[in-house]
Amino acid sequence: MSAVRVHNLSISLDGFATGDGQALDAPFGHAGERLHEWMFATRFWHEMGGGGDGAAGADHVFAARHGQGIGAEIMGAGKFGPPGWQDDPAWQGWWGDTPPFRTPVFVLTHRPRPSIEMGGGTTYHFLDAPPAEALERAREAAGGLDVRVGGGPTVVRDFLAEGLVDHLHVVQVPILLGRGVRLWDGLEALEKTYTIEAVSTPSGVTHLTFTRV
Amino acid sequence: MSAVRVHNLSISLDGFATGDGQALDAPFGHAGERLHEWMFATRFWHEMGGGGDGAAGADHVFAARHGQGIGAEIMGAGKFGPPGWQDDPAWQGWWGDTPPFRTPVFVLTHRPRPSIEMGGGTTYHFLDAPPAEALERAREAAGGLDVRVGGGPTVVRDFLAEGLVDHLHVVQVPILLGRGVRLWDGLEALEKTYTIEAVSTPSGVTHLTFTRV
Repeated sequence: MSAVRVHNLSISLDGFATGDGQALDAPFGHAGERLHEWMFATRFWHEMGGGGDGAAGADHVFAARHGQGIGAEIMGAGKFGPPGWQDDPAWQGWWGDTPPFRTPVFVLTHRPRPSIEMGGGTTYHFLDAPPAEALERAREAAGGLDVRVGGGPTVVRDFLAEGLVDHLHVVQVPILLGRGVRLWDGLEALEKTYTIEAVSTPSGVTHLTFTRV
Repeated sequence: MSAVRVHNLSISLDGFATGDGQALDAPFGHAGERLHEWMFATRFWHEMGGGGDGAAGADHVFAARHGQGIGAEIMGAGKFGPPGWQDDPAWQGWWGDTPPFRTPVFVLTHRPRPSIEMGGGTTYHFLDAPPAEALERAREAAGGLDVRVGGGPTVVRDFLAEGLVDHLHVVQVPILLGRGVRLWDGLEALEKTYTIEAVSTPSGVTHLTFTRV
């Protein structure tokens, strides 16, 4: 069966995956882009059109796993838009006409709307469903490929708590945010069902990989 | 001036430095000894009489910094004994007649008692004082050497919050405790006053060093 994977989920040393005060002009709240600077320097990001020098070292190797073998993404409402996007019928996500997903994307929201076909192979579907049911839908759409749980942290936590994630890649960035949305809450003893590996890289981040045993 | 240092402070991935439910038979609560297994395998631990194989790799090199150049320790009441030790006039700490500190140790407690001279160079002094004042006392006793803030997490956090720590060594262990005492609470933007380095070692832990800029 296709695997369920999480990639490039960046957190602060104190465990926050997004800051406080998310808004249209601050998708990550007071964290700004500080959780993702490590990624902007990679070839992965450069090839996505994000600029930068395009270094092809360890950070790139991890980052590039994001799209490899993925046939669908599941994301939370908090990733798709700023608070209140459900009130704006014209909102089509943060990522413009040609989003980087290039697969079906299932957006979890209590207020579903009709699907939107975007450029480049991305179609947004809107679902009001618990994790296992959303996963079933995404798996059907993925055509035998893997399903990525794309975040934000609340959705990743929900999927982890239900034991639905096969591979988790977290990038720990050496900053302390102090407030925001925590990734690890309520996941006591998660290490019992995963092999965990830690790799620090010269950029200063630590890649944590959880592989289901 | 002598430096203020923290060494070998072990935390879980979710940031807990001690578990829930500390007691006489469970100094670290439900965490047991899982936060310290990395240390038991080191030569540092072996030389302290703790047994083990005594590996002299990176974990040892970090661990052994604990005593180097230290002239006094400051510790919290929660490290000195289980909850309620203040009611037991015979309590003399967890570490027996010859504690491993071998320096003056200042125990912060709201219920001070007379000093206790132990074997091997350790003397316990009991102080009801805020961090800066306790540090002044410890510095006098350290004879020009450095002062170690020995924990627990609450005391380390207090000293960090007041900007009193020059060097912080945290060891992140790949487990999720879910509950207990957090190290990082209330330390937003700590990275601005420190250079932070992360090093993962083959044992699976990640050593984080904070050096004041």
